[in-house]
Amino acid sequence: MTEAFDAVDIIRIKRDRGTLTLEQIDWTIDAYTRGAIADEQMSALNMAILLNGMDRTEIFRWTAAMIASGERMDFSSLGRPTSDKHSTGGVGDKITLPLAPLVAVFGVAVPQLSGRGLGHTGGTLDKLESIPGWRAQLSNEDMMRQLAEVGAVICAAGAGLAPADKKLYALRDVTGTVEAIPLIASSIMSKKIAEGTGSLVLDVKVGSGAFMKDIAQARELAETMVALGKDAGVNTVALLTDMSTPLGLTAGNAIEVEESVEVLAGGGPSDVVELTVRLAEEMLACAGVHGADPAAALKDGRAMDVWNRMIEAQGGDPRATLPVAKESEVILAPADGVLVGLDALAVGVAAWRLGAGRARKEDQVQAGAGVRLHAKPGAQVRAGEPLMTLLTDTPDKFDRAREALADAVVIAPEGSRPAQQLIIDRIA
Amino acid sequence: MTEAFDAVDIIRIKRDRGTLTLEQIDWTIDAYTRGAIADEQMSALNMAILLNGMDRTEIFRWTAAMIASGERMDFSSLGRPTSDKHSTGGVGDKITLPLAPLVAVFGVAVPQLSGRGLGHTGGTLDKLESIPGWRAQLSNEDMMRQLAEVGAVICAAGAGLAPADKKLYALRDVTGTVEAIPLIASSIMSKKIAEGTGSLVLDVKVGSGAFMKDIAQARELAETMVALGKDAGVNTVALLTDMSTPLGLTAGNAIEVEESVEVLAGGGPSDVVELTVRLAEEMLACAGVHGADPAAALKDGRAMDVWNRMIEAQGGDPRATLPVAKESEVILAPADGVLVGLDALAVGVAAWRLGAGRARKEDQVQAGAGVRLHAKPGAQVRAGEPLMTLLTDTPDKFDRAREALADAVVIAPEGSRPAQQLIIDRIA
Repeated sequence: MTEAFDAVDIIRIKRDRGTLTLEQIDWTIDAYTRGAIADEQMSALNMAILLNGMDRTEIFRWTAAMIASGERMDFSSLGRPTSDKHSTGGVGDKITLPLAPLVAVFGVAVPQLSGRGLGHTGGTLDKLESIPGWRAQLSNEDMMRQLAEVGAVICAAGAGLAPADKKLYALRDVTGTVEAIPLIASSIMSKKIAEGTGSLVLDVKVGSGAFMKDIAQARELAETMVALGKDAGVNTVALLTDMSTPLGLTAGNAIEVEESVEVLAGGGPSDVVELTVRLAEEMLACAGVHGADPAAALKDGRAMDVWNRMIEAQGGDPRATLPVAKESEVILAPADGVLVGLDALAVGVAAWRLGAGRARKEDQVQAGAGVRLHAKPGAQVRAGEPLMTLLTDTPDKFDRAREALADAVVIAPEGSRPAQQLIIDRIA
Repeated sequence: MTEAFDAVDIIRIKRDRGTLTLEQIDWTIDAYTRGAIADEQMSALNMAILLNGMDRTEIFRWTAAMIASGERMDFSSLGRPTSDKHSTGGVGDKITLPLAPLVAVFGVAVPQLSGRGLGHTGGTLDKLESIPGWRAQLSNEDMMRQLAEVGAVICAAGAGLAPADKKLYALRDVTGTVEAIPLIASSIMSKKIAEGTGSLVLDVKVGSGAFMKDIAQARELAETMVALGKDAGVNTVALLTDMSTPLGLTAGNAIEVEESVEVLAGGGPSDVVELTVRLAEEMLACAGVHGADPAAALKDGRAMDVWNRMIEAQGGDPRATLPVAKESEVILAPADGVLVGLDALAVGVAAWRLGAGRARKEDQVQAGAGVRLHAKPGAQVRAGEPLMTLLTDTPDKFDRAREALADAVVIAPEGSRPAQQLIIDRIA
């Protein structure tokens, strides 16, 4: 077959700060999916995109071409609005777990396609797999049936959805080209648009534990994704939220499920509750449901009812005892004062090293491993008091986890207050 | 085996405009040669180097690591000085052919390791292979014997010399990362230093037909290479020379050999003679031979004697009839006036499309194909007079060759003079 373009010409255009035409972008994504562009050519192009950028028109077409590489789902036969949430990833970010059933309480179907963790950010599917019997893989038919009967589903994306993105993401992961705004935005939005959700709320994390370390970058990513969603007819809103310290008091798998269930029972850490309720309000508004009171649905057990049915529908036992790590070690406060900093990246790396995450896609995670926090920024602490508990089945990992935490804790004199604000901005 | 570094960390450092340590560079070259860094990782690193650069210390170590990846040759047993020339590549650049025997006339041994053409610039080995029987592959022992007996050899580099560079160059060629000064300089100089020449003259081309389109870039490349050579104990000088128009009156394979033989017979185009004599003077001076008269050795047949013995030593018949293209087409001058422009890149692309060059490494070249010029910039021309002859065995290629030449010719009113100067600068 004669190719319409030459891969080296495409790379040179982007290398020399040029703009790719719509035809060149369509060819690039199609040729890469077919194998007519080699991995080493695509990685050079990715690095040129990372360093030289893409304009909005290029990003729109790149996303459209990735959507066109696979199937598109359609939930219109459900006869009710659909809404989805996507987080760019953080430490202790278990919000999807209470959020999906909570939104479903109000008649909005939530088709939540989730991923696994790689590196220091956890994966929603890894967390749910700590529930005995629960399975992540559903056929499209099972997913539709569960949405119709329960109203919420959290499952793995099928292989047919944006296959170009799957291939491209695996390549970016090993070539130092993950952190490119055009590539992040198109990767996320191609999957969400192909998935067929009617509305979408993006939780764009900012801070040490997130991909985006500063607010300007996070805002640019959020604005790009909101524009992509709206252009594709998906009602899209983004929140910029703080990821300088972990969400809640747990970072791991089973311990994050446990905390999510506390929130669904009307309790749980205040930051997890605040973000869950705020994201539920945004999703419901995007889906056209007004006047709902999500906080009440957490208190009165309605969200928990949907959770139980959602877990059962995927083979899980919501009342089963969750796995517990075999070994633990406690980290003590080094001084009296106010805890003003507890670094998200350090806690994420520690949880990862303890076995909660994976270094390579083929690795297994430990269900019980992770870090349990006993204090959050703003708390008074006394020297010698427990600050965190490290959990693992493999105690030889304690040393490297402690290393990761060496500079994670900042204690200031009494009277100090941390400056964190959970919800930083809203972009619509 | 546990690796000292992680490829993604190395890529990220260069991506984020950092500086690689000596240990990181040594590991990168060694790991890539071993296959522990994948092609797709190296191409992302190459693109980051192309766009973000490398400092002199990094380039020196990168070059040293490539030399260390293979064997080093040693000509000290010859008992006489050695000198080599390297051109960064241009259109009609057959200078190596008359130059190597010319320098050998004066008792300096010339171990000229050459390459094949790729893209629009021709390859010295492709040109010589149009001589019936001539072979490019020599063992190291054959090369030493020929240097001792004849004084000059032009042959292919053995597989043992800088294998890291061979692998890296093949990768750069298909990933749009050829045009990076640190990578060009280290590629050329690693081979020349490993080859073991005592002195080296670099012909750095500038202009449309060269990799370097502007003088500032060419000067940076020349200065980098001269510094690399001197640091390794090789007496190195560079000339910056014009490549806005082809050298001589031929661009192809057999037709360039024919023109080289004219120069060795005391004739030939004045620009080819001028550059051959000047480079010979520089090589002889670098090798410590003073007071030689290379121009006389072209006139009196001494250089031709060495040429004949050099070709015979490699199986070629210097008196054989060279292959001739089966078909030809003439391009006529469109107007009366002075020819002030005849674009090197356009002529190079036309010759390539006619079959003189290859698009892929595995392609065959046509010995007879190319472009013969009937006028050079500065000449008076009349409308309807022949300007060039296109030569090929495959006449379906004429159309695309003519397309390449569409804007190549500039004719100005009588009295105009072209501004070209063949030798632009000297860097030592």
